[in-house]
Amino acid sequence: MRDIAVFSGSAHPELAEEVCQHLGVPLSPTRVSRFANDCLEVQLQANCRERDVFLIQPLVRPVQEHLVELLLMCDAARGASAGRITVVMPHYSYARSDKKDAPRISLGGRLVADLMVAAGAGRVLAMTLHAPQVHGFFSVPVDHLHALRELAAHFRQYDLSRTTVVSPDLGNAKEAAAFARMIGAQVAAGAKQRFADDLVNINSVIGEVTDRDVIVLDDEIAKGSTVLELLDRLRELGPRSIRIACTHGLFAGGALKRLSAQGDVLEIVCTNTVPVPAEEYTDKLRVLSIAPALAEAVRRIHNGESVSALFDAPRKE
Amino acid sequence: MRDIAVFSGSAHPELAEEVCQHLGVPLSPTRVSRFANDCLEVQLQANCRERDVFLIQPLVRPVQEHLVELLLMCDAARGASAGRITVVMPHYSYARSDKKDAPRISLGGRLVADLMVAAGAGRVLAMTLHAPQVHGFFSVPVDHLHALRELAAHFRQYDLSRTTVVSPDLGNAKEAAAFARMIGAQVAAGAKQRFADDLVNINSVIGEVTDRDVIVLDDEIAKGSTVLELLDRLRELGPRSIRIACTHGLFAGGALKRLSAQGDVLEIVCTNTVPVPAEEYTDKLRVLSIAPALAEAVRRIHNGESVSALFDAPRKE
Amino acid sequence: MRDIAVFSGSAHPELAEEVCQHLGVPLSPTRVSRFANDCLEVQLQANCRERDVFLIQPLVRPVQEHLVELLLMCDAARGASAGRITVVMPHYSYARSDKKDAPRISLGGRLVADLMVAAGAGRVLAMTLHAPQVHGFFSVPVDHLHALRELAAHFRQYDLSRTTVVSPDLGNAKEAAAFARMIGAQVAAGAKQRFADDLVNINSVIGEVTDRDVIVLDDEIAKGSTVLELLDRLRELGPRSIRIACTHGLFAGGALKRLSAQGDVLEIVCTNTVPVPAEEYTDKLRVLSIAPALAEAVRRIHNGESVSALFDAPRKE
Amino acid sequence: MRDIAVFSGSAHPELAEEVCQHLGVPLSPTRVSRFANDCLEVQLQANCRERDVFLIQPLVRPVQEHLVELLLMCDAARGASAGRITVVMPHYSYARSDKKDAPRISLGGRLVADLMVAAGAGRVLAMTLHAPQVHGFFSVPVDHLHALRELAAHFRQYDLSRTTVVSPDLGNAKEAAAFARMIGAQVAAGAKQRFADDLVNINSVIGEVTDRDVIVLDDEIAKGSTVLELLDRLRELGPRSIRIACTHGLFAGGALKRLSAQGDVLEIVCTNTVPVPAEEYTDKLRVLSIAPALAEAVRRIHNGESVSALFDAPRKE
Amino acid sequence: MRDIAVFSGSAHPELAEEVCQHLGVPLSPTRVSRFANDCLEVQLQANCRERDVFLIQPLVRPVQEHLVELLLMCDAARGASAGRITVVMPHYSYARSDKKDAPRISLGGRLVADLMVAAGAGRVLAMTLHAPQVHGFFSVPVDHLHALRELAAHFRQYDLSRTTVVSPDLGNAKEAAAFARMIGAQVAAGAKQRFADDLVNINSVIGEVTDRDVIVLDDEIAKGSTVLELLDRLRELGPRSIRIACTHGLFAGGALKRLSAQGDVLEIVCTNTVPVPAEEYTDKLRVLSIAPALAEAVRRIHNGESVSALFDAPRKE
Amino acid sequence: MRDIAVFSGSAHPELAEEVCQHLGVPLSPTRVSRFANDCLEVQLQANCRERDVFLIQPLVRPVQEHLVELLLMCDAARGASAGRITVVMPHYSYARSDKKDAPRISLGGRLVADLMVAAGAGRVLAMTLHAPQVHGFFSVPVDHLHALRELAAHFRQYDLSRTTVVSPDLGNAKEAAAFARMIGAQVAAGAKQRFADDLVNINSVIGEVTDRDVIVLDDEIAKGSTVLELLDRLRELGPRSIRIACTHGLFAGGALKRLSAQGDVLEIVCTNTVPVPAEEYTDKLRVLSIAPALAEAVRRIHNGESVSALFDAPRKE
Repeated sequence: MRDIAVFSGSAHPELAEEVCQHLGVPLSPTRVSRFANDCLEVQLQANCRERDVFLIQPLVRPVQEHLVELLLMCDAARGASAGRITVVMPHYSYARSDKKDAPRISLGGRLVADLMVAAGAGRVLAMTLHAPQVHGFFSVPVDHLHALRELAAHFRQYDLSRTTVVSPDLGNAKEAAAFARMIGAQVAAGAKQRFADDLVNINSVIGEVTDRDVIVLDDEIAKGSTVLELLDRLRELGPRSIRIACTHGLFAGGALKRLSAQGDVLEIVCTNTVPVPAEEYTDKLRVLSIAPALAEAVRRIHNGESVSALFDAPRKE
Repeated sequence: MRDIAVFSGSAHPELAEEVCQHLGVPLSPTRVSRFANDCLEVQLQANCRERDVFLIQPLVRPVQEHLVELLLMCDAARGASAGRITVVMPHYSYARSDKKDAPRISLGGRLVADLMVAAGAGRVLAMTLHAPQVHGFFSVPVDHLHALRELAAHFRQYDLSRTTVVSPDLGNAKEAAAFARMIGAQVAAGAKQRFADDLVNINSVIGEVTDRDVIVLDDEIAKGSTVLELLDRLRELGPRSIRIACTHGLFAGGALKRLSAQGDVLEIVCTNTVPVPAEEYTDKLRVLSIAPALAEAVRRIHNGESVSALFDAPRKE
Repeated sequence: MRDIAVFSGSAHPELAEEVCQHLGVPLSPTRVSRFANDCLEVQLQANCRERDVFLIQPLVRPVQEHLVELLLMCDAARGASAGRITVVMPHYSYARSDKKDAPRISLGGRLVADLMVAAGAGRVLAMTLHAPQVHGFFSVPVDHLHALRELAAHFRQYDLSRTTVVSPDLGNAKEAAAFARMIGAQVAAGAKQRFADDLVNINSVIGEVTDRDVIVLDDEIAKGSTVLELLDRLRELGPRSIRIACTHGLFAGGALKRLSAQGDVLEIVCTNTVPVPAEEYTDKLRVLSIAPALAEAVRRIHNGESVSALFDAPRKE
Repeated sequence: MRDIAVFSGSAHPELAEEVCQHLGVPLSPTRVSRFANDCLEVQLQANCRERDVFLIQPLVRPVQEHLVELLLMCDAARGASAGRITVVMPHYSYARSDKKDAPRISLGGRLVADLMVAAGAGRVLAMTLHAPQVHGFFSVPVDHLHALRELAAHFRQYDLSRTTVVSPDLGNAKEAAAFARMIGAQVAAGAKQRFADDLVNINSVIGEVTDRDVIVLDDEIAKGSTVLELLDRLRELGPRSIRIACTHGLFAGGALKRLSAQGDVLEIVCTNTVPVPAEEYTDKLRVLSIAPALAEAVRRIHNGESVSALFDAPRKE
Repeated sequence: MRDIAVFSGSAHPELAEEVCQHLGVPLSPTRVSRFANDCLEVQLQANCRERDVFLIQPLVRPVQEHLVELLLMCDAARGASAGRITVVMPHYSYARSDKKDAPRISLGGRLVADLMVAAGAGRVLAMTLHAPQVHGFFSVPVDHLHALRELAAHFRQYDLSRTTVVSPDLGNAKEAAAFARMIGAQVAAGAKQRFADDLVNINSVIGEVTDRDVIVLDDEIAKGSTVLELLDRLRELGPRSIRIACTHGLFAGGALKRLSAQGDVLEIVCTNTVPVPAEEYTDKLRVLSIAPALAEAVRRIHNGESVSALFDAPRKE
Repeated sequence: MRDIAVFSGSAHPELAEEVCQHLGVPLSPTRVSRFANDCLEVQLQANCRERDVFLIQPLVRPVQEHLVELLLMCDAARGASAGRITVVMPHYSYARSDKKDAPRISLGGRLVADLMVAAGAGRVLAMTLHAPQVHGFFSVPVDHLHALRELAAHFRQYDLSRTTVVSPDLGNAKEAAAFARMIGAQVAAGAKQRFADDLVNINSVIGEVTDRDVIVLDDEIAKGSTVLELLDRLRELGPRSIRIACTHGLFAGGALKRLSAQGDVLEIVCTNTVPVPAEEYTDKLRVLSIAPALAEAVRRIHNGESVSALFDAPRKE
């Protein structure tokens, strides 16, 4: 089999390092230069020829810098005769631009997928896409992982006998339900903000939460305002305890500090799909590593083994 | 400007006729031949050269026949030097295949979009797609209409002062809310079946329905089992009256008769995006025509006028 | 080398089974679901990742169903990261739509070839295409087999010393001539219907058939009317015996029964490129299996061995 | 409407001039430079921007020079922002490479079609392609003319009451039959060389020729050996007179002189799709101009009028 | 003709405004939103349907932000059924990444050209590309302007009788020579830094500069170090006066202040292809507007008139 | 690993033979047929299926014949299911058409690159391209070799202690500088003809050449007029000796004889990237073989080893 070569952009080198350690292969160095005119140039500093090349880059802030850098990495790998180029994108932020809810707007989720293919990407490894339909924006094969396994392993340290998993949004409650099943808990959901605009506003939590140990679960937390509103509703119903969990801990604009300042929130759990700056850390934060999962997926992709066999088990065959 | 030429496949010629009457142009004849080996051949029987060609075909039963026929129509128009080819697809049934919820399955919503482009389609006019993300499956411009205006005009004949619009599904409640605003009604939603699989089942209706005039609104009704279940829940809450409305009245497997047999259902309203066989008609059925809306959209597309200005008014600018 | 994975659509699973037995590999299961709205979904139920995937599907009645199913299979295999996708298409019915003999008609032979490539097919294994030019409709490599070897083996059981192979059509007589050489026979051809339309009609058989053992050979028999007309001409010339042979035994509209009812026809021989329904069988029918040939071709394609070396021997180097 | 701009490569400028005279537009100048390293460069010396550009070039000897020149012309027109590029190719010599009759050979007919599209051609106007299937090799619209109208007009000067049109080849007899109908004549065909290789050789003429005025009709005459052989067969049957006609008068290797040397051949008629060098002319040669027909087709393409209405009349609707 | 619609990204709205004033059309508004996750969304706030859309955006600092914004603008215009999309890119900074001078590096000049086409750009209007070969990186038509006319008009206010135009680089001296011809001056060139790396260093100025009025002319000035070195060489030769001119005044890292601080430099002239921040302005800076030239090119592109006729006059026909 | 298969077109079979000898693999036979109508057909006469196919063809006189032949070879290899197709093009003559210096001209360097990809080429191995930007014209990976190593080895037989390498053109002096470093020599350059057109003409040699052993180095010599002019300048400066060296010895129009006739030219050295006709040879000509270098590059490409590690050493990492 062709050898593997793993490179990291500058978005999250720590994650890339950790993935490589689990894979038992070195992280090959990438040189990113910025010219006087602010243009970037990428050099992949290890032989790519006929290699099975993996480029690790979550699209995190500054998103445009990291996106163009990733496209240049694809281009460099293609020009260097890579045997196959897989983009490992633990967080695809542009997935949120997935529909045209106004005339003449860009559809970033589809466009960026096309740009990656135009730059040479032959396959994508993604994690917890904002909507499952985003899979269909790519014209190349996508392996779509989730982090429920890692979150479940974390929460199993607690007594889960009176636990309810709460989705802030009914539209997204499917993941919460799957997670609840994994840990033997009940499920509930906030119905707020599911109705559009300002006219209609349903403020309720469907399902039992009173006197329960609540785990609020979302795919990502950016500004955290949705979760904060849900907390207000929950408090009216008297939960026994509150914990917060998500896959992508973006924590924009001081969100982490604001959430941590909620006295009744015992813990905030996320994964390392995106980097959390050290200075943002609070006592309540727990960051779980999805590097072992990514490494196993990369290993299976490289060896031609089934990825779905590992990660999609709870779904229908 | 280039002349317009409108052709219909065999899926719904009545609708095409009606659209052409509203446009004030003749429906150009299409000849579909079936050879002894069951292959199809299409001949467009009017000059297409440099014409602005519109091909009208909803993807209804038998779907595969109508799909291949449509692809052959695109091919014939392209080969005949059409200036531009717009597929008018009032119902895109494959839009429901919009995610990979099992390993190694086809993603029909994206594939069929790609096939149409491969066959020569340069633009699509669609109506009430099952999920807004399906828009992003197309690599050509899509005009995405809805039928709320037509439905609203119909219901305004009634006293709407105590009306609640009910979405069977919270995930889809946005359309119901928009519709409620249009007719000055309240909104509610069934929370059933939004949680996955068999383990979890929330059976409730969020919002006021007791002693209200209820309009159940969905994008499409196929077998009708979701609506029937919702009716059971509604009855427990004592509505004053019940009406049912949808855009795509597929009514598969006797669904229309079954719904009509519900004594407390006063009316079943759908549009003619798909044909309802005459023998299926019941006294309670009202079919609204979206032909004027399609004709106006075709006219604007042909003349280069804004389509969103007409149809997307309630959305954000 | 990458492992092989063979799947069958629903058009001809018996043939696929037989090919797999000759290959010594299991036929991997395919699940085809039909939704309430008549759309199809395909799931390939074995790992495709980096596998050398072969999808077996002749385009037989109902052609449109089988075509869309095949396209969905290609899409599923591509999405599942198949290493290579080869469509094994023992009968390509759309090959008959190979020219524009009227304005503004579809060119199905080219369109369907493009659709398969758009859906992910990377290579095609075809058998006895209606015209050799159809090869050029594909933008991917095609291996084009014929069944003359199998037919020859069958007829060698007879005394061939006074045999004449008769092509119903002079335009197609090349195959008949090649076959005649293989079995040491003479060749003749009907000149009927080669001149266009109604004005001109040459009714003759060129070559010796009087008092000869005649084998009528065509690439496919659908309605059988051409062969029946040829039989009338042959009878005027007094052949000693008549047998009929073809590669693709479509036998549409009772053709098999009608041909079998000809008292002087001793035998009707075809191959199993397309399935013949059990209830259509007559005493005079002999179905030869081309499964060993397909299996050998698949094996050679998989191993990177020359396919032409095996099958194209009689042609020029 | 966009203006028209017509350019000629160096293959047949006289024809281009004549087409332009019929169109009433000037032939825009093309500069073809050859560098010291034998590479070509083309400059189109008139504004192409948004123009409806027509590039006239039959692929005649030296074929490779004229092909590359044509590709460079397409590229120059595309780079100069032509509104539309139509290749007018009165003779597509590579159409003869239309099938794979040996392993690992090039399929020039398809490849050259793809090259023209890659270079920017958006449409093709062709004349009397060697096989009708070649139409399907192009991924852009093709208008396919024939020259039967011009040939018929020429022969109508004679008494045609005892005329038989003879196709040298039964496979191609359809054109001869259509031509015979146009002039009210009978049809016949040589059956020679239709059977492959050396083993089988049918030497006969099907149809009445004895004491008839014979017009031998073929699509093209290159070396002329097929026609010479047919003449031998005809003489055995005693025709009253012999004339020869074809669309493409390639006359390679002294063919024209050899045919003219046949005492009983009264006339050799071809069209000017390809240039006949002045020094090759003989007394018996008549060259008919297809410039009016090409000009009319160009005019209709430019104006978006039906081309098939004019030229394909005898075929089925 | 289709109407024109001009939009500006956020890179240089002042230039876009000025172009529109010269065109006599309004600058249509563009809304650029930045989400909490740092992703961008673009809305073009005027009807694009069938319009001739021009998107004005030089790729200036922050380059990656402006590039992604431009790609989203292209996508929005395409999705909104623009009739034609022309990217007006007065400065293409990625053009400097035009060769592979190290293994496995990205080739940004080609990649970004491909990305623009993938996003929907159908044509590009560029100005003074760093190397003329960059034209060939685009697969769509490029109109390539220069600013020599504007620079010449400015300098004609002076007595040019003893003027020498000096190129800092012999490789680029062609433009300097063309400019010198336009203003009736002599030409010279620095030979420095044309030889690679550190080993070889030719420090000389070829051509007469002693006691001459020198205009140093370059395509762009970023850090300005090349010009500063050239000034050192010039001073050794005793010029009568020194002025500096360039098309693209990037002036990175305080370059403008550093150059202005050179006592013997009388004037620094650039154009407004890129914005110069107000706070960077010095007394010696003169910014010439290329808006009239861009506007005239846009007008000609829109009207299908020759652009080369206007701008490429000094070159060979 | 897949087996290798090497084929040669008719441009330079001797070089291909030599490459194969160094590789230790047979040169597989290619059959090129020319039909009566001057069209070419190629047959690759060895199994290509899944092979790593290399097609060796410099684009030398007659360029158009060799180009079309090469395209047909690519097509044949693709149709024969080659695993990978690498075009080995020791001389890419169309690289000189690399910019648009006049309106509406073809850009052959880019077009021919696109044509090769359209015909199936998946990778290119080139040597000493005329401009490094030409690399970016290809949408497939390019390995770009140079012949400096071979030239250096040759000249090391001489006393190089007083040697100056002279580039005829300052624009191209980078290669001369790199070569000078390799052999420990000084560098100089002619400044002639770098300024455009006829108006400006700088005639000088920059760098020390008086009483030095001069090696004039250019990438290619076609008509030789530039070198002859340089010789005139050099003689004015009194070099001790003169030798001429280049990679591509095209020697058009008697250039070799003319250069050899210069009494003070001791030697003319080129490589065998292009064939020099035996009858052109002179006593002063030395042809160095780059076959070992090409063979080593082919070997590394086939084995997935770094090519840049070998050839690009002197450049920056």
